[in-house]
Amino acid sequence: MYNSFGEIFRFTTFGESHGKAIGVVIDGVPAGVDFDEEFLIQELKRRRPGQNRFATQRKEDDFPEVLSGVFEGKTTGTPISIVIFNKDQKSKDYSNIKDIFRPGHADFTYFNKYGIRDYRGGGRSSARETAARVAAGAVAKMILKEFNIEIEAGIVEIGGIRAQNLDFDFAKNSPILALDKEKEKIWMDLIDEARKSHDSLGGVVKLKIKNAPIGLGEPIYYKLDNIMASAMISINAVKGVYIGNTNAHKLKGSENNDQIGKNGFLSNNSGGVLGGISNGEDIELEIYFKPTPSIFQTQKSIDIKGNEVEVNLKGRHDPIVAIRGAVVAESMAACVIADMLMLNATRKIENLKKIYF
Amino acid sequence: MYNSFGEIFRFTTFGESHGKAIGVVIDGVPAGVDFDEEFLIQELKRRRPGQNRFATQRKEDDFPEVLSGVFEGKTTGTPISIVIFNKDQKSKDYSNIKDIFRPGHADFTYFNKYGIRDYRGGGRSSARETAARVAAGAVAKMILKEFNIEIEAGIVEIGGIRAQNLDFDFAKNSPILALDKEKEKIWMDLIDEARKSHDSLGGVVKLKIKNAPIGLGEPIYYKLDNIMASAMISINAVKGVYIGNTNAHKLKGSENNDQIGKNGFLSNNSGGVLGGISNGEDIELEIYFKPTPSIFQTQKSIDIKGNEVEVNLKGRHDPIVAIRGAVVAESMAACVIADMLMLNATRKIENLKKIYF
Amino acid sequence: MYNSFGEIFRFTTFGESHGKAIGVVIDGVPAGVDFDEEFLIQELKRRRPGQNRFATQRKEDDFPEVLSGVFEGKTTGTPISIVIFNKDQKSKDYSNIKDIFRPGHADFTYFNKYGIRDYRGGGRSSARETAARVAAGAVAKMILKEFNIEIEAGIVEIGGIRAQNLDFDFAKNSPILALDKEKEKIWMDLIDEARKSHDSLGGVVKLKIKNAPIGLGEPIYYKLDNIMASAMISINAVKGVYIGNTNAHKLKGSENNDQIGKNGFLSNNSGGVLGGISNGEDIELEIYFKPTPSIFQTQKSIDIKGNEVEVNLKGRHDPIVAIRGAVVAESMAACVIADMLMLNATRKIENLKKIYF
Amino acid sequence: MYNSFGEIFRFTTFGESHGKAIGVVIDGVPAGVDFDEEFLIQELKRRRPGQNRFATQRKEDDFPEVLSGVFEGKTTGTPISIVIFNKDQKSKDYSNIKDIFRPGHADFTYFNKYGIRDYRGGGRSSARETAARVAAGAVAKMILKEFNIEIEAGIVEIGGIRAQNLDFDFAKNSPILALDKEKEKIWMDLIDEARKSHDSLGGVVKLKIKNAPIGLGEPIYYKLDNIMASAMISINAVKGVYIGNTNAHKLKGSENNDQIGKNGFLSNNSGGVLGGISNGEDIELEIYFKPTPSIFQTQKSIDIKGNEVEVNLKGRHDPIVAIRGAVVAESMAACVIADMLMLNATRKIENLKKIYF
Repeated sequence: MYNSFGEIFRFTTFGESHGKAIGVVIDGVPAGVDFDEEFLIQELKRRRPGQNRFATQRKEDDFPEVLSGVFEGKTTGTPISIVIFNKDQKSKDYSNIKDIFRPGHADFTYFNKYGIRDYRGGGRSSARETAARVAAGAVAKMILKEFNIEIEAGIVEIGGIRAQNLDFDFAKNSPILALDKEKEKIWMDLIDEARKSHDSLGGVVKLKIKNAPIGLGEPIYYKLDNIMASAMISINAVKGVYIGNTNAHKLKGSENNDQIGKNGFLSNNSGGVLGGISNGEDIELEIYFKPTPSIFQTQKSIDIKGNEVEVNLKGRHDPIVAIRGAVVAESMAACVIADMLMLNATRKIENLKKIYF
Repeated sequence: MYNSFGEIFRFTTFGESHGKAIGVVIDGVPAGVDFDEEFLIQELKRRRPGQNRFATQRKEDDFPEVLSGVFEGKTTGTPISIVIFNKDQKSKDYSNIKDIFRPGHADFTYFNKYGIRDYRGGGRSSARETAARVAAGAVAKMILKEFNIEIEAGIVEIGGIRAQNLDFDFAKNSPILALDKEKEKIWMDLIDEARKSHDSLGGVVKLKIKNAPIGLGEPIYYKLDNIMASAMISINAVKGVYIGNTNAHKLKGSENNDQIGKNGFLSNNSGGVLGGISNGEDIELEIYFKPTPSIFQTQKSIDIKGNEVEVNLKGRHDPIVAIRGAVVAESMAACVIADMLMLNATRKIENLKKIYF
Repeated sequence: MYNSFGEIFRFTTFGESHGKAIGVVIDGVPAGVDFDEEFLIQELKRRRPGQNRFATQRKEDDFPEVLSGVFEGKTTGTPISIVIFNKDQKSKDYSNIKDIFRPGHADFTYFNKYGIRDYRGGGRSSARETAARVAAGAVAKMILKEFNIEIEAGIVEIGGIRAQNLDFDFAKNSPILALDKEKEKIWMDLIDEARKSHDSLGGVVKLKIKNAPIGLGEPIYYKLDNIMASAMISINAVKGVYIGNTNAHKLKGSENNDQIGKNGFLSNNSGGVLGGISNGEDIELEIYFKPTPSIFQTQKSIDIKGNEVEVNLKGRHDPIVAIRGAVVAESMAACVIADMLMLNATRKIENLKKIYF
Repeated sequence: MYNSFGEIFRFTTFGESHGKAIGVVIDGVPAGVDFDEEFLIQELKRRRPGQNRFATQRKEDDFPEVLSGVFEGKTTGTPISIVIFNKDQKSKDYSNIKDIFRPGHADFTYFNKYGIRDYRGGGRSSARETAARVAAGAVAKMILKEFNIEIEAGIVEIGGIRAQNLDFDFAKNSPILALDKEKEKIWMDLIDEARKSHDSLGGVVKLKIKNAPIGLGEPIYYKLDNIMASAMISINAVKGVYIGNTNAHKLKGSENNDQIGKNGFLSNNSGGVLGGISNGEDIELEIYFKPTPSIFQTQKSIDIKGNEVEVNLKGRHDPIVAIRGAVVAESMAACVIADMLMLNATRKIENLKKIYF
């Protein structure tokens, strides 16, 4: 259960940063979905590091091997297993941190929880695990495509500087997934500056889901919004999530309520979710990423015996995780929506009759 | 599954706002816990409306009947069922909204999802359901008490005005659970003003968990923080959650990383969670509540046939849900921690040996 | 989880034999099902003891109160809670066994597992819990009725004497649910004899499900047959289950394989399940009940301190549990089929398209 | 969920008979367990076909690659993924059955359920999937070894001929895992005869678990016995399970009750389970296997268009699946016990205190 997500569309990931492989088993995929292996490869490429100076230069081939669940180009209803073998491991980079706890990382908590940890590159707690999520998300998107549901994400804030005009099409071609053309250069400069000063930056991702049908989300504890939040905060470095208008808590009811006309809602402060159920509007959320904990400045810490030490990291790291994190956020959102689509299908007796009669 | 929360400490709630009763079944409670029925009653009283002018005047006795799972003052390891019969129902108040969708409420989505809805007081989507959560939380707190784990919550922001100095002890006796003595009066005035203008207010709750052991949270998808976020956003009117320093996304890594000394962490920007696992520091989060959707101003909407209508609500409603919501947030947090305590117990073979040898 | 069953149609029971109440919360019922409260009462009556000399004379009113999930005669998609308050408790009957372990009962294991037990009437381990299952089963049958799926059960063996000709219609009116008219009298005599000699009898129930569609059951670990077996063996006193021809293990492949013609299978040794999935034939199974452990002869045992004692039970008990157990088996089977119907609905992309387009 | 088993010790299998690989991800393994890779290989070898004339001559290397979850010889608490690449696939053997439904197999049900099936060697429904279970069982046994819990299984009946004297040590070295030395030759002759006549045989496996602590099993729906039955009947070809004395349903209470003395139970008709909880005695069950459905005689069937056809199978198949099935049954039993060990650990508050204080 610990390493699984979803109820019907349920995936389980495994693997350590510098182990033999990482991977995912996706259960609950309906039979008969066109399986687009090229799309899977493209999605992984979008997340892959080393593509430009705004991300770590660590090279990962991230080539996915589909081991099961697909036959003659279609899903069969059996579990789809996708494995990515680790190649560019450079274990030596990490030998200096074998016995110490890097600030901001999970070293301290894994060691104390389990009494043992794979220290190579963060082991299981490495963001490398998110490649497996992207593989799951690619399969989820293949399902969503059958229903014309689209998911898009981009950067809405870096270094406290917020986008004004959001343009998801622009973001698709921006090397930093910038949602605001006017801010792209400013944000790039901030990232360059952080990298040069051996530091890192946090950031905010905005995510939008279009064309989701009304009815997704199962009250009371498997609502669309609380599960979406759970999905997002499970991503490395994410510290917060907000659904809809991020000023809602500052507003009055008369300002925040979305009134309704005969052509639909007159505003979308709710972010497309009412009572935990999608209302047919765009589903919108913001996701708050902390700065990359791996920085190249001297930091204070302790070793596994409790002695105080100075930490000096080497290696290759993203100056900002929010950018690649946006792709992971899309993937998780796709998985949530695929799951909710199936869960909702059984919630009315008339739906079941459509299937069985 | 839809109406259940937790893996080992797992509770299931049921009931509609104006049905016969609401209640909860709590499974997974260990045997041998002292069951403090008086405490259960007190906790429900803390959430109960009608206690002062800052909350709805609807009177609910909220008297809990414990139907099972307790014997001679101790839990027996069998499910604890607690039922609260509804008394002050006033169904007539709601007849005017039988066929229309109240803005900001779940009327529209429930009707479209299920094709039928209990329109009386919001039915299942009513915040009345949270009384059942508080009952579950009270039982969770009885477990946490055995480990000296404490949970406290209060108001940190209303109407965009933020607390400066947080004092959880002060909040305990504040009628609006204000965390900042200096802001209490200002916030009260804002609430009075909102009520008088037939409007409502959003707000922000800060929650703190003290004395939680290191190791709570199960990576990767049942982390302490993503499940805590899921718990919070499942609460009516909650739109966002942030763990730790709520500026993390604006900071640099060198500012946000919590360095470590031999007496512990030198700061707590992480909010007590690293890699999804508690690190022994206070666990801290903020919870963002939208304003109460029930306001007494004319609003535009449609009826179930799609005709445009004007909505004019009557009845009794909280001018701000964040206050009573703070008690619910505490309860949910207690349930999460109780669950995580038990899950973590089995994650090391040496722990199991302590039990079986 | 411990006290819940099913994945989508998921029910959770609570309550002790001599506590305030027993009950059930049924989650995942689709909205829009006609709720037949009279049928619920009738089903509970079928299980109820005290109806003739073949069952215990303990009188239980077993009146179900539906607390939630039903509105204007239809299910709303929210959890249905049904509570049965205990009335005829006679706690005194059990005071003599407070500190001893009755042979064949769960007294010994509950005490050792939990360190505490509600000794009154067996507490949670009492077969009284099965009334809650029958309530869940009644709701499941309301769903199955929409699909013309029928479940029937009766006695196929008592005291080693097996039925020859099975007649489920005859069983419906037999006081002992005898499936074989010729054996009814013989079996009644055996039961009378057991009761008079202060002893009890085991027995075998045969259960048949008619009109189930092809496709129910989710390989590999949520197959129709393994979950059906789990459902049955969870019933008090059930020790075994066999699906299909109970001689299959003695047969050759050439005898046991069901060949197929253009009008369907030429035999049904499989009991309607192939690879864990229903094949459209009648689903058939046998369920093996041990004799009632409560007998009125002196037995050797120990008390909670380990001292050897003689046990002499008083009170009212079924001379054979298989008869009332048949009703419980039907109920559990109905719950499994309702769950599988919903799970199967999402396993083909074309099914989902029928719902969303 | 469909392809997963267990609650805490939870494994998920994937893969088709003639796809690229089969495998398993095992979640919930506690950290710090000695990982014995050689033992894993040996366990898989025990299940592997082609070892003598009593099993299919299909050669499978079954070499397990451990991809994750183990570091420096110990489990780390992260998921353990084990993959077995398929080598000896011989897809051509199956081309003749591409469009027809083999009697006794899942071809008919998979095709009708999913609308598509991987017909090569039975695809997902092949018993090849059980290699993944054996890998999971090997890891479970590594845990059980820490508690001296042992599991053993052997053949107790073939062709209606039952063992008299059970000798589990003898079975360990018998090529057919015969529990009765006197019957070994008779059973071998029956198997030879079945193979020569192009037929197959059913059989019965007896399984015993020694040294399990008192307290395993979570009433009411996650009992030791109903979950054990679920585990067993999920195995290909298993049609029935019986816990304890398989005559219990024919006995009287006075015969079947296990009386208790100060040194323990005076008999073990219960098979070590009372009220769904282990009582400290040996846990014993019997598992009923149908004959291998693949036989080499002409059989009637239909093709996917509904036309009547004659089926003539070629290839290599076990004349009796019960023998290799015994190893799989052991593996499943080990997984159940490992899961129950962990679940039980949290059921008493005093257990939790042992861990946290």
